[in-house]
Amino acid sequence: MLNGNMGENEPFKPMDSEQLREYGHKMVDFIADYYKSIEKFPVLSQVQPYYLKDLLPDAAPDQPEKFQDVLDDITKKIIPGVTHWQSPNFFGYYPGNSSIAGFLGEMICSGLNVIGFSWITSPASTELEVIVLDWLAKLLNLPDQFLSSGHGGGVIQGTASEAILVVLLAARDKILGRIGRNSLDKLVVYSSDQVHAAFKKACQIAGIYTENFRVLKTDASSGYGIDPKKFDQAIHDDMEAGLIPFFLCSTVGTTSSASVDPLVEIGQITEENDMWFHVDAAYAGSACICPEYRHYLDGVEYADSFCMNAHKWLLTNFDCSALWVKDSSALVNSLSTNPEFLKNKMSEQKKVVDFKDWQIPLGRRFRSLKLWMVLRLYGAENLREYIRNHIKLANLFEQLVRSDSRFEIVCPTLFSLVCFRFLPSNDDNDGYELNSMLLDAVNSTGQLFFTHTIISDKYILRFAVGAALTEERHVRESWKVIQNQATIISRQHILSKTNMKSKCEGMIANE
Amino acid sequence: MLNGNMGENEPFKPMDSEQLREYGHKMVDFIADYYKSIEKFPVLSQVQPYYLKDLLPDAAPDQPEKFQDVLDDITKKIIPGVTHWQSPNFFGYYPGNSSIAGFLGEMICSGLNVIGFSWITSPASTELEVIVLDWLAKLLNLPDQFLSSGHGGGVIQGTASEAILVVLLAARDKILGRIGRNSLDKLVVYSSDQVHAAFKKACQIAGIYTENFRVLKTDASSGYGIDPKKFDQAIHDDMEAGLIPFFLCSTVGTTSSASVDPLVEIGQITEENDMWFHVDAAYAGSACICPEYRHYLDGVEYADSFCMNAHKWLLTNFDCSALWVKDSSALVNSLSTNPEFLKNKMSEQKKVVDFKDWQIPLGRRFRSLKLWMVLRLYGAENLREYIRNHIKLANLFEQLVRSDSRFEIVCPTLFSLVCFRFLPSNDDNDGYELNSMLLDAVNSTGQLFFTHTIISDKYILRFAVGAALTEERHVRESWKVIQNQATIISRQHILSKTNMKSKCEGMIANE
Repeated sequence: MLNGNMGENEPFKPMDSEQLREYGHKMVDFIADYYKSIEKFPVLSQVQPYYLKDLLPDAAPDQPEKFQDVLDDITKKIIPGVTHWQSPNFFGYYPGNSSIAGFLGEMICSGLNVIGFSWITSPASTELEVIVLDWLAKLLNLPDQFLSSGHGGGVIQGTASEAILVVLLAARDKILGRIGRNSLDKLVVYSSDQVHAAFKKACQIAGIYTENFRVLKTDASSGYGIDPKKFDQAIHDDMEAGLIPFFLCSTVGTTSSASVDPLVEIGQITEENDMWFHVDAAYAGSACICPEYRHYLDGVEYADSFCMNAHKWLLTNFDCSALWVKDSSALVNSLSTNPEFLKNKMSEQKKVVDFKDWQIPLGRRFRSLKLWMVLRLYGAENLREYIRNHIKLANLFEQLVRSDSRFEIVCPTLFSLVCFRFLPSNDDNDGYELNSMLLDAVNSTGQLFFTHTIISDKYILRFAVGAALTEERHVRESWKVIQNQATIISRQHILSKTNMKSKCEGMIANE
Repeated sequence: MLNGNMGENEPFKPMDSEQLREYGHKMVDFIADYYKSIEKFPVLSQVQPYYLKDLLPDAAPDQPEKFQDVLDDITKKIIPGVTHWQSPNFFGYYPGNSSIAGFLGEMICSGLNVIGFSWITSPASTELEVIVLDWLAKLLNLPDQFLSSGHGGGVIQGTASEAILVVLLAARDKILGRIGRNSLDKLVVYSSDQVHAAFKKACQIAGIYTENFRVLKTDASSGYGIDPKKFDQAIHDDMEAGLIPFFLCSTVGTTSSASVDPLVEIGQITEENDMWFHVDAAYAGSACICPEYRHYLDGVEYADSFCMNAHKWLLTNFDCSALWVKDSSALVNSLSTNPEFLKNKMSEQKKVVDFKDWQIPLGRRFRSLKLWMVLRLYGAENLREYIRNHIKLANLFEQLVRSDSRFEIVCPTLFSLVCFRFLPSNDDNDGYELNSMLLDAVNSTGQLFFTHTIISDKYILRFAVGAALTEERHVRESWKVIQNQATIISRQHILSKTNMKSKCEGMIANE
């Protein structure tokens, strides 16, 4: 129980300011201590499934428990089950940044705990979001049409998946409004084979027919970006077949290999064909606040919508996915609700933005606070240096990989993701087994965590630099761990083959 | 800037544990001070649209700013634009509780900042969620089939809107898988006219045809709950017309008036007709942890899915909407994705739950921490007392209203929501103008905030008790403010009518 809370005759006080102060300070110390010792934990949790079931009671307590007991349980029971995304040795997936400014922003968001679905329910929540997304749009040098001064503007979604879904729904309802909803079976969407799985999920949700989901094959020749000719041809074929091309989901910084679709060329094609053009820059968008990387967004002027995740690589604690649209009316037409119990003069007079109509859920947190604090407390120049430093570290890692002839670099390192693999021996299943064994072996050490993908049928190791605490020494140490495990794996691999060979020979001899 | 962060030659350190400690303590004090002085602020923000645009620069700074300057800006520029959901005088919509335990839980969630989409990405995040939702299911005395030990279990969604959407999608895809997706136009959904607007929005998203959305009319005779006979008849008519009834969204504690659908009767009908039966108890579910209110959930044994928002009235900071399903495979079949870059042994071997397949977004926060902390630090008995106290205060408010003959109570007060209205004079537009004037006048005082609805074509005032800080004195004071404003409004109303009459007489005399 929260001490002093429940004297014999005192009423239950779940929000006493002095208790909040007392316990809040303790929790801040607990979290600061966590960051102080974060390198001590295995990066990937080493627990087995259902480990926690045996450690916790199977029902909530009737009577309050002590705060210290809960903290002790977090240390002893929860932390061992945590995969430490904030560890400097976390190189998996893409980063999920935490920072002091982001953390403080989350704290004040949760402290105020307002539910800002309509402007009136907390004007500051809506207005700060509008302003801060304009700030970020300007840092990204997005076209003016994405700013709030026109018909468009930005909004914070939970994730890039939700961003894709809401714009897909907006596009779907816009075209069905014109041609009739019975034509749902005729609508065709396009993306490359490198698009995030969220797009397929969004299509399923929106009811797009599976066979109308055109997956454009990519390969090394176009850097795993969409080939505009193939895209154009696919549209042409679909129109010939009486279908209706209406949506392209392109990516700047794909999940597998950080590849980039050629926005200018494909954007022109979407314009010619009156299609909705979405650009998903969930990961790599952050890099585009640096002038030297901004060219990857050239062509975004053709886009109807653009998304990047400040919660990935821009120091804003999860969740904060920034979505901009050129014309918000399509979103609002598709997603607005106006029940009596939410009506108010400001909304009725259409004087204000109600973000409930730009998203799936009704309720929403005051998430702009954390993004605002990140931008103000760090400033644009530090954020750019932060990005550049990670890209520099990724380049260092690439050099380390190249200096070991047992490995190869698979894709160009455009941002902070290095795609590489352990070269297969002749008789191996093209390195699938070898590389997956290496990945498991390294991650089992707990010293670092990284992940894999498959590109062009090859099993690839992904080393994504981007945690706030990562320094050069972590990259160098991690590479050593990978090298050492590679040596061990190779030996085991040869050994097991030799064993297998002699076993076979034995069997043949015994026959 | 965060002090000490950026010495001349020091690298940028966005996650230094000692700085986190220093600034974290300052933020805790800031928030504790906010709660100490929360009664001083107007409950409903009194700012005008676009007030913040003039107060903030139009671009992010290049160089870092001081933490104290940001705190000062929160005080001077943000707080005036906040509608104070945590004020003891907030009686609008339904409550959105904050508590110390919930706040601490949010803090540790944001401190660890893990993205627990798959089990492997932080086993503790998934496992604690499974366990704590079992705890809460037991407090609610839900049927065993909703527990994780069988084919079902609980999951935390952001909002009840998302909960409705995911189960609607699961139900849609389940039936279309059987009868073919070309039958989308034949699918019929049902709810009462009191259902939350989120249901209509979910239907739009899922592509359910608007004319197949049966809105069952309710009235005072059934306490604004669904009339089972009307429901049965509607199904019958739809089947006669060759349509396919497949989904019922029922409510325990509707948004307008906290009315309750008769779950047993309508549940039996859904069972007979092999329909998906969803129970939305977003608000009133919390009350059902008290044995004396649990009977409102009788019939939930017929349900396929059940939802309640711990972030409304159960002291868990937003967002924390708890959804249970009896059979998770329908959700997973509809919402799963399995891209290579997320593959891992644990998931492949189907040993674990991956909550990404139970929700719309991919990423997810470690939200179970806060619910766990609320249940442990307060204990079930305190939570029940907390609910009972609010219901007692609502009953007190009802008595106060009844004691003033100028007002009437419109619906029975089942939980902590009181629906009432200022009785119209004879020549009034049935009280619409009078009551909306009264609402605006009261909310403009800033002394309390409450909202309205329309039921049976009448404009109704809603007084929803449920903020964590609300005590008897706040309810009594608020009632006085309402009475005083009612007196003023009546006088103005009579005066304006007298003026109008004399104006008319003047005009007639002048003709």
